[in-house]
Amino acid sequence: MATPSSSAFDGLFDPKTVAVFGSVKRDKIGHQLITQLAAGGFPGSILAVNPKGESPEGCPDIPGFPDLKQTPSAPDLALIAVPAQFVEGVIRGCGEAGVPFAVVFTSGFSEIGNTDEEERLKAAAGRYGVRLIGPNCAGIMDTGAALYASIEVRALPGKTAFITQSGAVGGAVLALAKIRGIGFSKFVSYGNRSDIGEVELLDYLESDPRTEVIALYLESLQNGRAFMQAVRRVARRKPVVIIKAGRSSSGLRAASSHTGSLAGSDEIFAAMIRQSGALRVPGIEEMLDLCHGLTSLPRIKGNRLAVVTNSGGPGILTSDKAEELGLQVEESPEKLRGQLAAFLPGHCALANPIDLTVEGTREGYRRTLQAVLESVYDGVIAINVATPFLDSAALAEGIVEAAKNQKQPKPVAAVFMAGEIVEQGIETLRQGGIPAFPTGERAAFVLSKMYEYGRGAERREGAERTELADAGLTAEAGLAAEIEQAPLPFRTDAPVLEPDAVSFLEEQGFSFPAHRFISTVERIPEAVGSLGFPLVMKVVSPQILHKSDVGGVLLDLRNERQVRDAFADMARRFAGREFRGTMLYRQVVEGLEVIAGIKQDPTFGPVILVGAGGVLTELLRDSAVRIAPFGREEAQDMLSGLKISGILSGYRGGAALDREALVDLLVGLSRLAVRCPAIRELDFNPVFVQERGLKIGDARIIPGYFPVAKVSEATTRLL
Amino acid sequence: MATPSSSAFDGLFDPKTVAVFGSVKRDKIGHQLITQLAAGGFPGSILAVNPKGESPEGCPDIPGFPDLKQTPSAPDLALIAVPAQFVEGVIRGCGEAGVPFAVVFTSGFSEIGNTDEEERLKAAAGRYGVRLIGPNCAGIMDTGAALYASIEVRALPGKTAFITQSGAVGGAVLALAKIRGIGFSKFVSYGNRSDIGEVELLDYLESDPRTEVIALYLESLQNGRAFMQAVRRVARRKPVVIIKAGRSSSGLRAASSHTGSLAGSDEIFAAMIRQSGALRVPGIEEMLDLCHGLTSLPRIKGNRLAVVTNSGGPGILTSDKAEELGLQVEESPEKLRGQLAAFLPGHCALANPIDLTVEGTREGYRRTLQAVLESVYDGVIAINVATPFLDSAALAEGIVEAAKNQKQPKPVAAVFMAGEIVEQGIETLRQGGIPAFPTGERAAFVLSKMYEYGRGAERREGAERTELADAGLTAEAGLAAEIEQAPLPFRTDAPVLEPDAVSFLEEQGFSFPAHRFISTVERIPEAVGSLGFPLVMKVVSPQILHKSDVGGVLLDLRNERQVRDAFADMARRFAGREFRGTMLYRQVVEGLEVIAGIKQDPTFGPVILVGAGGVLTELLRDSAVRIAPFGREEAQDMLSGLKISGILSGYRGGAALDREALVDLLVGLSRLAVRCPAIRELDFNPVFVQERGLKIGDARIIPGYFPVAKVSEATTRLL
Repeated sequence: MATPSSSAFDGLFDPKTVAVFGSVKRDKIGHQLITQLAAGGFPGSILAVNPKGESPEGCPDIPGFPDLKQTPSAPDLALIAVPAQFVEGVIRGCGEAGVPFAVVFTSGFSEIGNTDEEERLKAAAGRYGVRLIGPNCAGIMDTGAALYASIEVRALPGKTAFITQSGAVGGAVLALAKIRGIGFSKFVSYGNRSDIGEVELLDYLESDPRTEVIALYLESLQNGRAFMQAVRRVARRKPVVIIKAGRSSSGLRAASSHTGSLAGSDEIFAAMIRQSGALRVPGIEEMLDLCHGLTSLPRIKGNRLAVVTNSGGPGILTSDKAEELGLQVEESPEKLRGQLAAFLPGHCALANPIDLTVEGTREGYRRTLQAVLESVYDGVIAINVATPFLDSAALAEGIVEAAKNQKQPKPVAAVFMAGEIVEQGIETLRQGGIPAFPTGERAAFVLSKMYEYGRGAERREGAERTELADAGLTAEAGLAAEIEQAPLPFRTDAPVLEPDAVSFLEEQGFSFPAHRFISTVERIPEAVGSLGFPLVMKVVSPQILHKSDVGGVLLDLRNERQVRDAFADMARRFAGREFRGTMLYRQVVEGLEVIAGIKQDPTFGPVILVGAGGVLTELLRDSAVRIAPFGREEAQDMLSGLKISGILSGYRGGAALDREALVDLLVGLSRLAVRCPAIRELDFNPVFVQERGLKIGDARIIPGYFPVAKVSEATTRLL
Repeated sequence: MATPSSSAFDGLFDPKTVAVFGSVKRDKIGHQLITQLAAGGFPGSILAVNPKGESPEGCPDIPGFPDLKQTPSAPDLALIAVPAQFVEGVIRGCGEAGVPFAVVFTSGFSEIGNTDEEERLKAAAGRYGVRLIGPNCAGIMDTGAALYASIEVRALPGKTAFITQSGAVGGAVLALAKIRGIGFSKFVSYGNRSDIGEVELLDYLESDPRTEVIALYLESLQNGRAFMQAVRRVARRKPVVIIKAGRSSSGLRAASSHTGSLAGSDEIFAAMIRQSGALRVPGIEEMLDLCHGLTSLPRIKGNRLAVVTNSGGPGILTSDKAEELGLQVEESPEKLRGQLAAFLPGHCALANPIDLTVEGTREGYRRTLQAVLESVYDGVIAINVATPFLDSAALAEGIVEAAKNQKQPKPVAAVFMAGEIVEQGIETLRQGGIPAFPTGERAAFVLSKMYEYGRGAERREGAERTELADAGLTAEAGLAAEIEQAPLPFRTDAPVLEPDAVSFLEEQGFSFPAHRFISTVERIPEAVGSLGFPLVMKVVSPQILHKSDVGGVLLDLRNERQVRDAFADMARRFAGREFRGTMLYRQVVEGLEVIAGIKQDPTFGPVILVGAGGVLTELLRDSAVRIAPFGREEAQDMLSGLKISGILSGYRGGAALDREALVDLLVGLSRLAVRCPAIRELDFNPVFVQERGLKIGDARIIPGYFPVAKVSEATTRLL
């Protein structure tokens, strides 16, 4: 898919002439679309196209035509709501008439299994160069162009572009937003995504001057790595807010390795979010709250929050939530207390939450907020819990004034509770550009996510700085697969024997204990002479994948006699199972056990995993995953999120372990995964991390090309 | 505090005559109270009492009096909104006139440090037998009696009694509830709680016929154990829904033992919730949602949830959330699919969520719900995501009909999204008794909490059955401290030496490795002869609390020579620190390390803790806490919540450990804690749990009476 130029979809969102295909009888979608376009004040021409060439019922001003050949000029946008069997013909007609964009509302295609029908529709559009939204979608809106090509509630104007895979979720968001006075720049429901999808839309919206925030509701991705690339780039300029629907438990590919089972698709999606700097929200209420905050508040530079309230309880609930979400609600500094004490009555609490009590006034709010905003805090939540007898609008004025008078703006979020008695106050806030949230907890969520956005930008910058130097390739190049790929030095359609895997991995710079491959008993004396004791012996056989389970690993061999006996024993026991010999390793006696590896995700391709090893693996469920490739900073970030991170740093008086060596290992795995797509899974289990360096206790490679390319061409369900 | 009779507060909530003390000028609280009473249709008499004996401005029908001596008869209820300095006098007047109840709105008492003033007010009321709500409160309401003695938004009638410590939170809840059409039976803001508080109100509401659910907003408790006792009892008959405000990090008593630091006040509050069968919610939106569900839906008997929707996306978000909260959204059984396929169009998804698509009809909802409700599911969420062109009221009718036609009612929660376009539909649902929630996620939260209520009742029953037999006392008796208490056999004002602690604990049935106290070197031969090897030696000195830190513990002594040398070494090193000798223990070489102990919580008194020991303690932060006393079932529940629970059961092929021995230890600690209040803290660290039995590796007792009684008499901040 080619990246569109920044103006590629201008014609889609700002057409001069729109043709609506479909029945224009009342209650039919064609009629509803025309009603909506007209009611929304669409400034261009609307044409109705239907077999009889009728005007819509009740709209004699809208001209009707039997087909596009009769219209005065070709429309810029076709809205198609004819029955499924006629859609292909309509698209062909659009193509012949030179219509550049079509939105197909009609359902009955791939969403109910009719994939052939959808392919034909796509092919027809492709032949004529008609770009499609849909089918099975709820349409598009552009509030700046007064284009309401949708049967959903008409959005208010705003600065958030909302892209949704589910038309119904889109409709619900628009309806909820409207009652809260929250607006949108653009709305796109892309339905089955037979052509235009989330990646191209992101690319386009990156430079859309009317859009400051991009929100997405996703159920699946067209191409995981292309999506991640787009989000990474766009999120540098505009916040990208994402809801991802779908259970983490289902749709999980059965993984045959230990490390592989550490991360399900939901954890990998979370890694994508973290690595690309997007903001994930659980549901539509949180999405609306956050977009409202992001489009109306200045950025928050740190995490110190002040709460100014006229009521203790809601102040406490707010600071509880804020601290739970990682914001700091620190006590007011001495200086600030002094300033506040100079004008606030003695019964006010000055600590933070700062409680003006029910007697708090317009001036009280204004002066308090002004002092707080000039102090150490990075943002403020101003709460007013009203009674029917309180003038909330006056308090709103005080808040607006304080927020406006800032030299270096910090965010001021308001919470006016509740119901009808604060409607006037909320309207005053709205006019003053201050967002109001239903509860302090929800305002705290918004500020914590805004803080996450700022921190994410810093983190990402650091991560990107180290990518080239550390990973030997940029993430951009890695995601785009524009890197030289290396074949594996062994067959990819058969089990990889341990001696082959180890020697390949050593060449790649991974560190194993001293070892020898013993094919016959005659080789033992030289090997033990060179390796020393104690030793570990492991059987080598293409038929034996899980060596421990069949007694194929013997530990703690302390002299040559024991080694010879062990070898003879294995040769005898595994004689019938293609016994090729044994690996002899110097036994590693100390270090923290971790596990690390590569697996291929059907959506995002190669990912790297690391986690607690040994007995802690299942006990702690302590793991981190990142999409390859990445550099040292990202690897450091992975480790710092582990529960065993403290042990690496020297825990309870223990010596610090070689964290840097583990970082090298992860970056090395990430490079290997991208360069060698023929590694389907790789498992280091365990890795012994020591005070100086580390040793890989066991390595296993499962070769074979995982069909990522094929899967990501199609629609990959994230579910 | 005496437990009131079940009708004790009838006069408070259903008075014949109400006297309002305070200025009756417009904008004054006295005036507002009278306005509210009148507007709410109070059927009794309202009297205004103020120095000039004026009628309220604009209300000439309300008679004014200068004092109670002039009124035709004594009122049943006084509402007091005079300035703080006059409150005591008014109460005295009420007492002389025989007024039984007074609600004091006036602030300026203990909440701003004026505790003496509040004590005087309380004393005056006590002298005359006037029962008080407040001061510094927002009043009371009884919708059944049309009593709106509050300046907050007037509640709609309903079945939830809402008790709040914060008047502002109360007001916000009432206002939010009103716009959603949710009502209340009673409302009580008790402010500073100088007299009537949450415990007495719970007792009263338990048998209030108009109240089906009790909701509380708490910042502190008057008496933690009395409160727990009341909740335990009441929750058997009616759900008790609790918001507890306050950070878990602050207000935490500095604990000097390891086990003590395992649980902060918030974890102990959570234990109280679990042991008493209450339902905790994080904030007011969740509280409203839950009370709405509990008062309008039948009980949910299991956790199998079906989602019926006309839109895929919201259905997925709902089932995601439901599964996260522990409900099961299992695929529809074959039989149900067959039934649905017989009447639903082919494009509908039958799996669960069951998606009727945007074409879903009244009949489609009705028949689908009917079939689902007759199948294996325990409850249903019915979602309608509307467009402006959809007849949501018709769909609501289908849902209501299906819910009403059930023989054995199961809960049907509705989600109609969103905004104005579904208002009519939501009204239809309301009239049909079906609660509507703003999102499917919120409906899922409600059903998950309702399921928790049911499970809690079962669990509690089991726990109570075992209490008497296992703990040797009932929790009721334990909470009420109606049990025989035993003194400790050593001084409680000095450090307890290890030999004394161990011999006391052995008498109580706790199990230590074989041991000897060695006061002089001459005793060594007999001791080692009897104990065997290897041995552990620990210094005994009243000056040494943390033995390991000063080299006061020597491990792995393997012969008599080593023991003699070690003793000589300790005698020399600790000569200047009141060296009394050493303890010699047989060294325990195997078992899972756990830690367990007793601490005194300032709110709830003695609590028992258990957690992962050794290196896992800080790594896992794996602990459980319960309020003593409790029996074996509760102890089992504690263990099953630990991350190391799997290891106890035999983890990764390891042998099962003696879980029952650990249960015995916890029940024993719980009994000890209640019988011996002079144990301020007790620390078993570590306990080695073995395949058969367990051994306590180290025990420490910190004696001293913790001032729980004193603290719980006063107001204990939970913060």
